[in-house]
Amino acid sequence: MEFSELFPVFSKLTKDQQDRLMAGVSKRTAPKGTLLHNGEADCLGLVLVAEGQLRAYLTSDEGRQITLYRLFPWDLCLFSASCSMRSIQFDIQLEAEKDTEFWLIPADLYQALSEDSLAVANHTNEILSARFTEVMWLMEQILWRRMDKRLAGFLLEEMALEDSPVLKITHDRIADHLGTAREVITRMLRYLQNEGMVKLSRGSITVTDEEKLRELNT
Amino acid sequence: MEFSELFPVFSKLTKDQQDRLMAGVSKRTAPKGTLLHNGEADCLGLVLVAEGQLRAYLTSDEGRQITLYRLFPWDLCLFSASCSMRSIQFDIQLEAEKDTEFWLIPADLYQALSEDSLAVANHTNEILSARFTEVMWLMEQILWRRMDKRLAGFLLEEMALEDSPVLKITHDRIADHLGTAREVITRMLRYLQNEGMVKLSRGSITVTDEEKLRELNT
Repeated sequence: MEFSELFPVFSKLTKDQQDRLMAGVSKRTAPKGTLLHNGEADCLGLVLVAEGQLRAYLTSDEGRQITLYRLFPWDLCLFSASCSMRSIQFDIQLEAEKDTEFWLIPADLYQALSEDSLAVANHTNEILSARFTEVMWLMEQILWRRMDKRLAGFLLEEMALEDSPVLKITHDRIADHLGTAREVITRMLRYLQNEGMVKLSRGSITVTDEEKLRELNT
Repeated sequence: MEFSELFPVFSKLTKDQQDRLMAGVSKRTAPKGTLLHNGEADCLGLVLVAEGQLRAYLTSDEGRQITLYRLFPWDLCLFSASCSMRSIQFDIQLEAEKDTEFWLIPADLYQALSEDSLAVANHTNEILSARFTEVMWLMEQILWRRMDKRLAGFLLEEMALEDSPVLKITHDRIADHLGTAREVITRMLRYLQNEGMVKLSRGSITVTDEEKLRELNT
């Protein structure tokens, strides 16, 4: 998809601003599994997803992970450009969960446009607010929701994303999404299996009772 | 302090924008302990602190709390105006931790100004980004930091805010700040007392070895 279609405020820019933007952006591809952005170690720029799926996550000093949110086509990731936003002082990692095509907007170019265009500045506000909402939701989950319910929610989300009840995902990987240890996930999956909600086999998890999983998730 | 001194982009507004803003804002006071804003139950508006100290926090369905951040003079709270910001879909509570004076900006007025003034829109971005940074820091603490270290950090912060080693605060109240149960805090405070870092007495906690508390906090 073209950049101008994916960037919702493109039509609100002046011709000069549009030209500057188009001269700076570039289309990139990232095969599934690529680490696109690794915290403060690099300054990638803003990522506007055209195809595929990205995962934004945190990593602890000890290597534990937790998924903050996923990015899908039309989504713009600001935090991979935190180098040029002095008020943002935290680091995320960004990886391709599926083969992904995206437009890259250099951080400095976006920053200059924000200071120049009310439409871009307000668009940035919208995105920041939407991400903030997602992260606050996550914080409430972490603080106040039992892990079995969070796991049920995660499996249902994965089913929807993969459009299949068969999920090719390791216990380790689920632990990385939910910010816990593998052992915790393995124990809970066995519990879900005993309750007839999933069937575990080597390298995959099959949801066998979606209804019951939904009940647990409420 | 006057509104124009506290609102950093005031001088960047047009005369007309300044007049609209001044016609809408009002000065309020909130005695210590006042609940200023209670999530979606009301639509207070934006709060610009002139004097005192506010606490922004989350509350679970079961009444558990956790402090998100504190607001001091010059700080602007956007989330007490979430009613008028459709991308913000979470609710915080806001209470006065000390006798507080603040300027109240009606949500609609601020929203209209944001859509009209690049300076205001970019100021909003700065504030959102700064709050985001604080909340991400908190999330990392919750996920990956032992509660005894978080408690040590909290006691040191309180000491600095109160400018005294004697903290008049209940165990319940500390639990509300840190998002845990009172029993957990009581147990840890006793541990800190055994280690000689604090002395517990009825209604207060005295920090007796700041150095050792700082070591625990690192």
